[in-house]
Amino acid sequence: MRTNENTLSIFALGGINEIGKNMYVIQYADDIIIIDCGGMFPDESLLGIDLIIPDITYLEENREKIRALIVTHGHEDHIGGIPYFLKKLNVPIYATRFTLGLIELKLDEHRLTRDTKLVTIDSESKLEFGKIGVSFFKVSHSIPDCLGIVFHTPEGNIVHTGDFKFDLTPENNQYSDIHKMAQIGSNGVLALISESTNAERKGLTPSEQMVGNHLEEAFIHAQGKIFVSTFASNVNRVQQIVAACIRTNRKLALLGRSMVNVVSVAIERGYLDVPEGMLIDARDVDKLPSEKVAILCTGSQGEPMAALGRLASGNYRDVAVYPGDTVILAASPIPGNERDVSRIIDNLFQLGARVIYGSGSSTGMHVSGHGYQEDLKLMLTLMKPTYFIPIHGEFRMLHHHRLLAESIGVEKGHTFIIKNGDVVDIKDGMARQTRSVPSGNTYVDGIGIGDVGEIVLRDRKQLSEDGMMVIVVTLSKEDGKIIQGPDTITRGFVYVKDSEDLLKEVNRLVKKTVNDMQEENIRQWNIIKQNIKKSIGQYLFTKTKRKPMILPIIIEI
Amino acid sequence: MRTNENTLSIFALGGINEIGKNMYVIQYADDIIIIDCGGMFPDESLLGIDLIIPDITYLEENREKIRALIVTHGHEDHIGGIPYFLKKLNVPIYATRFTLGLIELKLDEHRLTRDTKLVTIDSESKLEFGKIGVSFFKVSHSIPDCLGIVFHTPEGNIVHTGDFKFDLTPENNQYSDIHKMAQIGSNGVLALISESTNAERKGLTPSEQMVGNHLEEAFIHAQGKIFVSTFASNVNRVQQIVAACIRTNRKLALLGRSMVNVVSVAIERGYLDVPEGMLIDARDVDKLPSEKVAILCTGSQGEPMAALGRLASGNYRDVAVYPGDTVILAASPIPGNERDVSRIIDNLFQLGARVIYGSGSSTGMHVSGHGYQEDLKLMLTLMKPTYFIPIHGEFRMLHHHRLLAESIGVEKGHTFIIKNGDVVDIKDGMARQTRSVPSGNTYVDGIGIGDVGEIVLRDRKQLSEDGMMVIVVTLSKEDGKIIQGPDTITRGFVYVKDSEDLLKEVNRLVKKTVNDMQEENIRQWNIIKQNIKKSIGQYLFTKTKRKPMILPIIIEI
Repeated sequence: MRTNENTLSIFALGGINEIGKNMYVIQYADDIIIIDCGGMFPDESLLGIDLIIPDITYLEENREKIRALIVTHGHEDHIGGIPYFLKKLNVPIYATRFTLGLIELKLDEHRLTRDTKLVTIDSESKLEFGKIGVSFFKVSHSIPDCLGIVFHTPEGNIVHTGDFKFDLTPENNQYSDIHKMAQIGSNGVLALISESTNAERKGLTPSEQMVGNHLEEAFIHAQGKIFVSTFASNVNRVQQIVAACIRTNRKLALLGRSMVNVVSVAIERGYLDVPEGMLIDARDVDKLPSEKVAILCTGSQGEPMAALGRLASGNYRDVAVYPGDTVILAASPIPGNERDVSRIIDNLFQLGARVIYGSGSSTGMHVSGHGYQEDLKLMLTLMKPTYFIPIHGEFRMLHHHRLLAESIGVEKGHTFIIKNGDVVDIKDGMARQTRSVPSGNTYVDGIGIGDVGEIVLRDRKQLSEDGMMVIVVTLSKEDGKIIQGPDTITRGFVYVKDSEDLLKEVNRLVKKTVNDMQEENIRQWNIIKQNIKKSIGQYLFTKTKRKPMILPIIIEI
Repeated sequence: MRTNENTLSIFALGGINEIGKNMYVIQYADDIIIIDCGGMFPDESLLGIDLIIPDITYLEENREKIRALIVTHGHEDHIGGIPYFLKKLNVPIYATRFTLGLIELKLDEHRLTRDTKLVTIDSESKLEFGKIGVSFFKVSHSIPDCLGIVFHTPEGNIVHTGDFKFDLTPENNQYSDIHKMAQIGSNGVLALISESTNAERKGLTPSEQMVGNHLEEAFIHAQGKIFVSTFASNVNRVQQIVAACIRTNRKLALLGRSMVNVVSVAIERGYLDVPEGMLIDARDVDKLPSEKVAILCTGSQGEPMAALGRLASGNYRDVAVYPGDTVILAASPIPGNERDVSRIIDNLFQLGARVIYGSGSSTGMHVSGHGYQEDLKLMLTLMKPTYFIPIHGEFRMLHHHRLLAESIGVEKGHTFIIKNGDVVDIKDGMARQTRSVPSGNTYVDGIGIGDVGEIVLRDRKQLSEDGMMVIVVTLSKEDGKIIQGPDTITRGFVYVKDSEDLLKEVNRLVKKTVNDMQEENIRQWNIIKQNIKKSIGQYLFTKTKRKPMILPIIIEI
């Protein structure tokens, strides 16, 4: 894109019309600042894909202008793309101590060398990149050490909220700094970029404290062992589980790699306070009386291979769920995961456990980290922005967020509901959206980044639904007559034993097709192959109503 | 199974630990009565499968004892398996007029000849099969003309509830006959077989009337066209939509094949009352002022090819959603469908529609047809059974239903939580569960029934995740040397253009493997193939972290 000397540009490379792979860009003249670099887990239609990350073509083409990647917090949808990003671009990363701890864990997992500059910042930091000054403010969320960002540009101040809620009784001092936000608002905000996850939900998000109270209650009444499953990164909730253990005199074991890793980062860096001697090894769980132990585990989203999933199917080596044990799901299923979570709950009931589960905050064991409508309106009210760009949400959430903005006085026409790649340009105080930069999904499959595209996925879809049939036939170079074959191999189509007649008829048809061609003296392989595909395809569809992929292979000798 | 002369046996061939493919069996000595014959839609792990139906091995082996298939109501999970069942077994079907109407639609779709005896019954019918007498009672549900069943056996009376709720203000007189149930209970119930779908939900199911009130409200306030999407079979809701059209003077168009079919069955058979001239053709929608028309459409579960899905993506031929139109989702997403439904809602918002949506009965536009905890307790209280068998639910629902039964006085140990196939035998008033009959899933794929099994599905899974590579190599019969090839074909693995080096190395490795074998004078194809699979598999995994299916093909000339 041609950049205008004095234009401020704001756009997203991910995070709009989706929950995931957040990546936003602020550019003023020749200075680019990136906010977040997230990943997104694919839905079941993207067969075999492991992760989706933003298409960063624009950034690669403008690499010399990039000054910084600022990360608002350490959730996967904000940091999951970093290892792949760093393989393409070496950009200094700015984040808080806890967020950097999680980023470093991730870089270690990917065995990435640390030639990237990692800069620790906090809410009092002040940075400067060209003509853009950057300052921060604290926000509450479901992970410690989250930041909102203020970009001080010659055009005016731009505020990016990060992910947030207002929690007036937070754990561990993880409050939203309302005073500072009020000050920022008073100084004038040209544009507010605010997250929209819960823009459909009425009211104010409940406080994390509510969960603490319910956890304590459940711990007091539990008889056997207590299992609690939650997101490893929700350190404040882990702190409340620790508190409930103290209250009821239980030791605590950690199950699941990410739980162990994140808790140790949190303890090391001072975000989690666990009394000496409380943590025990999983192998020691059975050595203690069941009413003296609690187990904190991963797998709250129903992942079959995570700790809770393995416990539910009786496949965890050191620990087992016994009749009378209590299992608390202190997390709500993310849309799309409901069925997997239900399966695990069923298995736990079959083991005789008391299971405390439910969606949203219905059980009191979970509260959202994303502000509801009143939280979003409070942010809008504090910032009083001239322009508003709702981000971090599917379309209906952005739509509702716009209505909220208008309800507190943002002028109609001053909200920009953009798509990934759409650029909002602000010049001389006027904002408009007329142009776009490249954007899209880059698929990570195994160690391939971007090497799986639509064609490969389309093939996988056909293979997955109806399987395939390979037909090999060897022809004479001289006269085009069949020397050997046809031989057929099928996979994922029908069970061969039950289908001998079908395969016989396929062979007959292939022979006939090849012989017909030979008589007409047609020797182009492509035509022969196409005719085989067509005749066999039609035959198989008539007989089975399936459309396997047909791969004719012709050998000429 | 050996049947004991004087034993009453109760079991399920489908419907336990799942929502779907309901099929229950009552057997006394040599008389078998089947209740319902449902289908179940597969989840995404069953690649390419169209429908799951019960394994009916037991019934096929005892075909001469089967006296009747009694169908409680016309939902897919109770009638969806009938066309496949009839291909194996010719059994007279007993159902109410409306249920039979839907069954006949289904038989027509499958072009099945009608050599099956279809018998219309109603709640006053009395049947006799050997020593089993059968009578019925009316229940409310989300489809007209539903029955509960009483089996009068020499051992005592067995009650099967069908699917039910208690609705004291139902539409169209579709009430639950509490007086008759009370009478049945007073006469003594040996065992109650009751559905468990909403056993986790507290309270009493709201009445269908609530939906009518909300619909009317929405119709009065809507400006443009009104689209309402609901299940075609929910005729009582359709009746309320008709009422709202009358109230606001709108014509009504029907979109979607099943909507058109089911509504015409309902009108013909007297279950739906639509004023003369109210129904208009979809092609005439645009000829009327937008405030004079409503559209009733299929697709409330997010199916992309159903009417609402096509409207949302602007792909419906005759009708379009315009800015300002209202779209009402008068149905709640079934677990697993949330993401598809959300996608459609997003698209509708993008078209500028006002969309009324939400889960459960939160919008007032949907109520469940399945009784909540208080409904279930009322049924248990009315029937006062000695034994209780909760059915029609996943394990946690059955578990909660047992707790409900115990709360109203069913003795501990008198509830049988069975699995599909587990038989509850009752003799001399004593019930016990010690044996099982064959049961399981039969997969329907295209027109194949049961020809796709675990091996085919496992292959489809591998193909879907990592694709495949076919390697063809032609060897000399004389000395085992390569005459031609190797040639490789990949599908669903990598985009070939980007992977030339990879494929070159594959060719080199195949050559090396074959030559090594040839030098060692190993000529068994199986061994050569296995070595190719192994060496190429390892190489590809190292390079890509993917495991495509590798199919070596050796031609010997």
